[in-house]
Amino acid sequence: MRVIALLTDFGLKDNFVGVMKGVILKINPRVEIVDITHNISAQDVFEAGFLLRYSYRFFPESSIFVAVVDPGVGSWRRPLLIEAENYYFIGPDNGLFGLVLDSARIEKVIVLENEKYFVKPVSSTFHGRDIFSSVAAYLSKGVPLREFGRQVKSFQRLEFPSPQVKKDRINFSLLYIDRFGNIVTNLTSEILKKFTKNREFLLKIGSKAFKLKVCKFYEEAKDSEIFLIEGSFGFLEISLKKGNAQDFLGVKRGMDLVLCRAQSLRR
Amino acid sequence: MRVIALLTDFGLKDNFVGVMKGVILKINPRVEIVDITHNISAQDVFEAGFLLRYSYRFFPESSIFVAVVDPGVGSWRRPLLIEAENYYFIGPDNGLFGLVLDSARIEKVIVLENEKYFVKPVSSTFHGRDIFSSVAAYLSKGVPLREFGRQVKSFQRLEFPSPQVKKDRINFSLLYIDRFGNIVTNLTSEILKKFTKNREFLLKIGSKAFKLKVCKFYEEAKDSEIFLIEGSFGFLEISLKKGNAQDFLGVKRGMDLVLCRAQSLRR
Amino acid sequence: MRVIALLTDFGLKDNFVGVMKGVILKINPRVEIVDITHNISAQDVFEAGFLLRYSYRFFPESSIFVAVVDPGVGSWRRPLLIEAENYYFIGPDNGLFGLVLDSARIEKVIVLENEKYFVKPVSSTFHGRDIFSSVAAYLSKGVPLREFGRQVKSFQRLEFPSPQVKKDRINFSLLYIDRFGNIVTNLTSEILKKFTKNREFLLKIGSKAFKLKVCKFYEEAKDSEIFLIEGSFGFLEISLKKGNAQDFLGVKRGMDLVLCRAQSLRR
Repeated sequence: MRVIALLTDFGLKDNFVGVMKGVILKINPRVEIVDITHNISAQDVFEAGFLLRYSYRFFPESSIFVAVVDPGVGSWRRPLLIEAENYYFIGPDNGLFGLVLDSARIEKVIVLENEKYFVKPVSSTFHGRDIFSSVAAYLSKGVPLREFGRQVKSFQRLEFPSPQVKKDRINFSLLYIDRFGNIVTNLTSEILKKFTKNREFLLKIGSKAFKLKVCKFYEEAKDSEIFLIEGSFGFLEISLKKGNAQDFLGVKRGMDLVLCRAQSLRR
Repeated sequence: MRVIALLTDFGLKDNFVGVMKGVILKINPRVEIVDITHNISAQDVFEAGFLLRYSYRFFPESSIFVAVVDPGVGSWRRPLLIEAENYYFIGPDNGLFGLVLDSARIEKVIVLENEKYFVKPVSSTFHGRDIFSSVAAYLSKGVPLREFGRQVKSFQRLEFPSPQVKKDRINFSLLYIDRFGNIVTNLTSEILKKFTKNREFLLKIGSKAFKLKVCKFYEEAKDSEIFLIEGSFGFLEISLKKGNAQDFLGVKRGMDLVLCRAQSLRR
Repeated sequence: MRVIALLTDFGLKDNFVGVMKGVILKINPRVEIVDITHNISAQDVFEAGFLLRYSYRFFPESSIFVAVVDPGVGSWRRPLLIEAENYYFIGPDNGLFGLVLDSARIEKVIVLENEKYFVKPVSSTFHGRDIFSSVAAYLSKGVPLREFGRQVKSFQRLEFPSPQVKKDRINFSLLYIDRFGNIVTNLTSEILKKFTKNREFLLKIGSKAFKLKVCKFYEEAKDSEIFLIEGSFGFLEISLKKGNAQDFLGVKRGMDLVLCRAQSLRR
């Protein structure tokens, strides 16, 4: 059984996701459908790309990912099918897959043009149903890639921010905030080790500063303590023991922050 | 593999939906279960009927729909199994299926009475588990319809509101509001074309009026512009570019609104 | 097809649950994955145990339950696999399974130690992915229990509160509050019948008292009336007709309440 994994900003209130699954099963009843998430913030292409980037390798080879965060639906943006790293990616060409696959070996990029594999009539507001789910289902049945449209060379890219390590500080970004309020940064343990052997840091947000230590697991922190921990995305996360770090710090995705050695401030 | 598709107002906080799936798989492990949605507003039979009405045809033939929005659970309202349009519908007789199937060819209507196919003891608060899931699972295994109870002729109806086209205006209704705040009306492109060739309109809500044009796709609208677009339900929707039309207009499901030709107001 | 049922506090915003499913299907594509719920209140071990306790028997025999509410992830708390009542339970040893299985016949308790069956590298923040899902998938493929680690005798217990029946009152607890605001108590119809033949009661919360009658089904109550009803967990629930009992009474999970005979107050 082939896996089709879905990731959208459609939410779970409406029938959108259910209908996509109906479309898939009508074409190929012998497929395993998995939800990665449907609660991407509305039209947040970066958030979708970030989550898919750190999800797809956990799936079986040949899995098909349908990722639909699609503010340009119905307009000129191209519908794509990409083969890369033994996986398949289907969705709009708006940077999402650029973020997912920026360091991946790309095998093929196809623009979806063959209406034979679409649900008709194709609406101008729900390509998740009419194009992407339908193509995914036919692909899972073994329809060859060239059948779906012409091959192209490139697709939209979206920049993945890198931390800037200076002499006395690191400028870094918030990549993602999870349901517990854990703040995923673009810092890694390696970056921190190169910066200092000290395990205590100062986090600066505007005019405020917070002392942080690095913990190996959540239980190591004291209640209400704020700390850094290597999270499951492979990045350092800012967490609050028995609390919500995002609420506590009042930060938002995309904000740029500063980390200093703990002693920097004392001097 | 037969599809059983679920639509309820049970939400995803509790174990209700999971338990329904357990019940189904205990009876028939070889079935594909799909969630249409479980986030129907509590006890909102119309909303449930509306979403199922515009979902079921996307599913494979012979799919079984279990729709449980059931304020009358445990009382005198009848549990039903309906065969129509090569699909099967299971749930309480409270108007929901009347809305779904008001223009459908009805093959058979069965009142679920044979306790052999129920989970025992049958509670008086959770027929989704004890009757509807269980019957759906047995049906998916091939138990004939007559086994489940006696055949009846009719079931509860629920009115689907039609727009009223007058000389100088259309009185119409809000059928549904989706997760993005898009407002699904009961207007169609055909109704609008008959009313005027103009593509600009005035939307009147109480004493306020908003200018609207019709867009073919979301990108056509300017940021913060409010516009009409043919949505994926087949109806015209009121949308706000990069925003939430419901919040902006302050409307609610069921409200009656007025659309005029744009020039009507100028005169 | 073996069932793996998941219950976590991971929510549905992030990719955590989707990734767990990817891990499972990569190891065993021929398994049926069911979500019980992922919306357990963050780190609420009691809530998770309560829901699983009243869910698992509805699933097919041999089902595998992966329950991850895991504040101690990465620390010294033991990862467990328990065989009981023809089912399998996998998750951290923090009292959750003690609550689920306190009256169950326990066959085997295994501490998960064999890293051969883990996703590597094992993170210190997401054992739901790296240990529990992975072990569940291998178990579903038929790997024998002794392969996963050494057998132990006991596991953490968590107390299930019992009501205290006095001469003139019952002291009882709120076990759970569902999405509709129904308040699941630890009272049963049997306890009430022993206490009084009267069907009218006084509920005391702090200095307030509310008159309650027992209803057989929701429709029996009048609009805005508060009442007791035997719910689908097998306990009496406090409900508000066409409303939310929790909001109305302002109660929270874990609160201790008092029920008296209706006449007690009059005297």
